[in-house]
Amino acid sequence: MLGGEKMEELKGGLSLKSHLALLTDYYQLRIAQGYFFFGMVRVNAVFDYFFQENPFNGGYVIFAGLSDLLEFLESLRFEPEEIEHLRFLGFKEEFLSYLENFHFGGTIYSVKEGEVVFPLEPVVRVEGNVVETQLIETILLNILNYQSLVATKASRMRYAAGNCKLIDFGLRSAQGLGGIHGSKAAIIGGFDATSNVYSALCYSLNLVATQSHLWIQSFGDELTAFRKYAELYPDDCILVVDTYNTLRSGLPNAIKVAKEMEMKGHKLRAVILDSGDLEILSKKVRAMLDSAGLNYVQIMVSNQLDEYQIRNLIQQNASIDIFAVGTRLITGHNHSTLHAAYKPCVIGEQPVLKFYDNFLKTTLPGRKKVIRFFDSEGKFDGDGIVLETDENIEILYNPVYTEQFRSVNESSGRFLMSKVMENGSLLRQMPTVEEIKRYATNRLVALPSEYRRLDNPKQYEVGISPSLMRLRSFLFEQMRKGPMPKQV
Amino acid sequence: MLGGEKMEELKGGLSLKSHLALLTDYYQLRIAQGYFFFGMVRVNAVFDYFFQENPFNGGYVIFAGLSDLLEFLESLRFEPEEIEHLRFLGFKEEFLSYLENFHFGGTIYSVKEGEVVFPLEPVVRVEGNVVETQLIETILLNILNYQSLVATKASRMRYAAGNCKLIDFGLRSAQGLGGIHGSKAAIIGGFDATSNVYSALCYSLNLVATQSHLWIQSFGDELTAFRKYAELYPDDCILVVDTYNTLRSGLPNAIKVAKEMEMKGHKLRAVILDSGDLEILSKKVRAMLDSAGLNYVQIMVSNQLDEYQIRNLIQQNASIDIFAVGTRLITGHNHSTLHAAYKPCVIGEQPVLKFYDNFLKTTLPGRKKVIRFFDSEGKFDGDGIVLETDENIEILYNPVYTEQFRSVNESSGRFLMSKVMENGSLLRQMPTVEEIKRYATNRLVALPSEYRRLDNPKQYEVGISPSLMRLRSFLFEQMRKGPMPKQV
Repeated sequence: MLGGEKMEELKGGLSLKSHLALLTDYYQLRIAQGYFFFGMVRVNAVFDYFFQENPFNGGYVIFAGLSDLLEFLESLRFEPEEIEHLRFLGFKEEFLSYLENFHFGGTIYSVKEGEVVFPLEPVVRVEGNVVETQLIETILLNILNYQSLVATKASRMRYAAGNCKLIDFGLRSAQGLGGIHGSKAAIIGGFDATSNVYSALCYSLNLVATQSHLWIQSFGDELTAFRKYAELYPDDCILVVDTYNTLRSGLPNAIKVAKEMEMKGHKLRAVILDSGDLEILSKKVRAMLDSAGLNYVQIMVSNQLDEYQIRNLIQQNASIDIFAVGTRLITGHNHSTLHAAYKPCVIGEQPVLKFYDNFLKTTLPGRKKVIRFFDSEGKFDGDGIVLETDENIEILYNPVYTEQFRSVNESSGRFLMSKVMENGSLLRQMPTVEEIKRYATNRLVALPSEYRRLDNPKQYEVGISPSLMRLRSFLFEQMRKGPMPKQV
Repeated sequence: MLGGEKMEELKGGLSLKSHLALLTDYYQLRIAQGYFFFGMVRVNAVFDYFFQENPFNGGYVIFAGLSDLLEFLESLRFEPEEIEHLRFLGFKEEFLSYLENFHFGGTIYSVKEGEVVFPLEPVVRVEGNVVETQLIETILLNILNYQSLVATKASRMRYAAGNCKLIDFGLRSAQGLGGIHGSKAAIIGGFDATSNVYSALCYSLNLVATQSHLWIQSFGDELTAFRKYAELYPDDCILVVDTYNTLRSGLPNAIKVAKEMEMKGHKLRAVILDSGDLEILSKKVRAMLDSAGLNYVQIMVSNQLDEYQIRNLIQQNASIDIFAVGTRLITGHNHSTLHAAYKPCVIGEQPVLKFYDNFLKTTLPGRKKVIRFFDSEGKFDGDGIVLETDENIEILYNPVYTEQFRSVNESSGRFLMSKVMENGSLLRQMPTVEEIKRYATNRLVALPSEYRRLDNPKQYEVGISPSLMRLRSFLFEQMRKGPMPKQV
C-alpha cells in the first residue's frame, strides 16, 4: 500500500478542488444573489441529507464521500477567474464582491464515513446561513450520492465474494471523471485494490496491474511476451492467458514461465481469465497449475461480473482467488444513482417540512439526531430518529405506518452523529480510506445477516420519537389548514 | 447562449486537463515501461475504437466526446509532480526521463463528433507507436463511452419530446465529476439547455435556473417569495409552484405575480411542476393560466422522467412545454455504460485480430474505412466496413452471418472517417458543441424512422467487404492452426 508522509506531500498536487466552485446548478447562484439583495444573508437554515430507499433492492447503504465533501467545503472559494465568469453571466457587482470574500462558514454534523445507514435517517446535517447552506446543495448531493452508491455496491460484492480478493478495474467504464471518486468508494465498500493510478495516488490505495493483449501480440509469440514481462516485474507478475487459446496456449506458456521464474527465486503471482466460461475454465486451469506444482499461483477472473455472478461462481466451487470487477461496480449498474435528498428542516428558528401527499416523501422537521440500538450480542437492533431535544427515548413509531410502534431502551443505544465541521473549519483530521474501510467492515459485521443478504433482505426498523411525530403532525396540519385560506 | 471570443478567453481557466495524465490503469504505465526497456518504442500499432451493441435496446449510437479526447491528447504531458509520483511507485529512472519528454505523437482518423454510428464500425482509428497507442486506452474509453452513452440517451428523449424543450438538470445525480462531460453530451444529443454552470461555461451552453423550495419557505409566504424573485429576475423568471399546494396556492400566487409583472412590462416565463400526476396537473395548470390570460406562460415539468414517460405524457396530450430531466439522462439509467472496445488491428505492418469463439466478438483486422450508402431520398441505406485499400465496393457480407450478403453501388456512398490529428497535432479547430449538435440533428433526420423508434427498432445493416472477410478468415485459420502446434 502507498501511504505515509511522502504521499501526503505528493497528494496536494493532484487536487481537482480548484475551479469547482462553479460546478453547481445555476439556481444556486441566482438564489444566493437573491438572498444577498434582500438582506437575508443572516437568516439561518438547517438542512438534512437523507435518502428514501435502499439501492439494489438491498437492505442498507454504506455512507461514503464525507471526507471529499468536507475538504471541498473547507477550500471553497470564488477565484478571480470564476468571478469573471459570473460577471459575464450578468451577476451584479455588489454580489460579486460578496462572493469574492465568500467562504463556507457552516457547521456540519454527520455520521461517520463508512457507517451503515438506512432510509429516512438524517445522515448529514448542515447548519449555516441560507446562502451557504443552499449554495452547496448540488455538490453535496453529487459527491455523497455517487460514493455511497458505489461503496454499497462494492459491499454487496464483498458479501458475495467471501474471502476472495476483489479488484476494481472500473476506470475505463466509469461515467467520465466520476471514476476518480468511484475507485475510492469501491475500497471503502470492501475492495482490496484498484487499477486506477490517479485515485490510488490521491487516496493511498493498493494498485494492481495485469497485461494488455497488445503486449502479447506485439512480441509475436506469447511465450516471449510472458518471459519479457516476468523479467521486468518478477515480484508482481500477473499473466493474461486468453490472447490465443487459454488451455492450449496461454496456460502452458504461463506454466513454463512460472517454472523459469522459480529457478531465479521468483513466484508467478497469478494468471487472469477474462473470457470463456469462468467456472469450467477456472477449474481446469487450477488443475493444470496444481499438477505442475504451482499451487501458489492464483487465478484472477473478470468478465462483466456483479455480485450475483460472483455468488454463483463461489457456489459452483469455481477455482477463483481474485475477482476483477469493472462496469457493474463503478457505475452501480442496475441502480445508477442513490436517490438522496437535501432538504431544509429548520429556517430561522422555525422547524419546517416539505409537504408531500404521503409520509414516506414528506420530510422530517427540526434538528434531529439518530440513535442506534444494539442487542445483547452487539448487533444492530433498529434505529431511532429523534429530536435533538429528546431525552429518555422509550418508544418509537414507524414513520410511515404510524399505528406501529416499539418500546426501546435508550441505554442500549448509541447516537450516530457528531460535529465534524464548525464555522467552516474541520474539527479533526479526516480518516484515511483504509480506516474508513475498516470502520465499514466492522459495522457490516454488526448488521444481522437478514439485512445483508442480496435478495429480499428484511427491512431494518427505523422509528421516530413521539415528539418528532407530534411536530410533524402539527406542521402538517398547520400547512394544510394555515396558509391556504389567506392566499386563495 | 454564451459564446464568442470572450468565452474562449475565459474557458482556459476552468480546464481540468492538467494532472489527468495519471488517470489511467496501472498496466498502461507498466506496459509502456516494458516497451521502453525492450526497445519496442518504434514498433507501430493501429487501434480501432468500436462498440458491439447499441445501448437502451435502441437502433443507433450518437458518437460524442471526440473534441475532449483530442484536446486531452494534444496537451498530454507528464509534469514534474507526476513523474515524482511514478518514481514513488517504483518506475525506473530511464523510463521516467522518457516520460518527461513524452507527448502523444499519434495520428487519428475519426468519424465526426455527433455522427450516427452502428455496432462493429470503427468509429475512431489511432495510429502510432505501441507506447502512445496503448497508453491512451483508458482515458479514450472513459471519455468516448460515457459521452456517447449520454448523447444517445438524450437523442431518444429528443425523439420522444418532439418540439418541446428539453433541459438537463442532472448534475446533482451525476456519477461524481462525470457530470462535467455529461451535460455537454446531453446538448449534443438534442437538449436545449442545462443547469450546470461549470459545463455551460466550458462549452458555451445555454443555462436555465428555477427556484429552490428553501427560497419559497425562507420568505415565510409564497407570494412574497415569488414577488421578490420576479423583481430580481423579471426577464427570466420561472416559479416553482408545488411548495405548499400547486392548484390552491402555488399557481394562484404565480398568476397574481405574472399579472403584476405585466404591469411593469415583463412576462413570466414559466411555472415548474415537479411532483404529482404530471398529465392531470399540467392540464389543470394550463387551463388556469389560460383563463387568466397568461397563455404565453410555459409549463415545465420534472420528476424522474425518461424517454418513455416523456412519450406517454405527449401521447396523453399533457400541457407541457419544457421537460427537465435529471438522473435518467445523466447516468444513462438502464444502461450505465456503452460497452465499447479499443483493440489493435495492425501491429508493425501485420494486420491482427483478437480471436473469440464467435464472429460478433472477434475483432476486424487491418486498416479500415467506413462507407455509408444513401437512398434516392438521401436517407441512410446501410454501411460498409471495408479495407483502406478496397476499391470498387460492389458487395458486402453480413459480418456475423456470412451467408448473407447484399449488392451495393459505391457511387451512392460516402466515406465517414477523416484524419483529425496528425503526429499529435490537431488538424483543424474543433467544432463548437452547438455545431456538433446541429450535425447530429441533421444526421438523425437522415436515419429512417424504423431505426430511431424507442421500442424494437430495426437493426441497421453494416456489412464487410469481401477482402476484409477474406483477411479475417485467413488470420482466423492461421491463428487456429498456426501457433498452437508449436506451443503445445
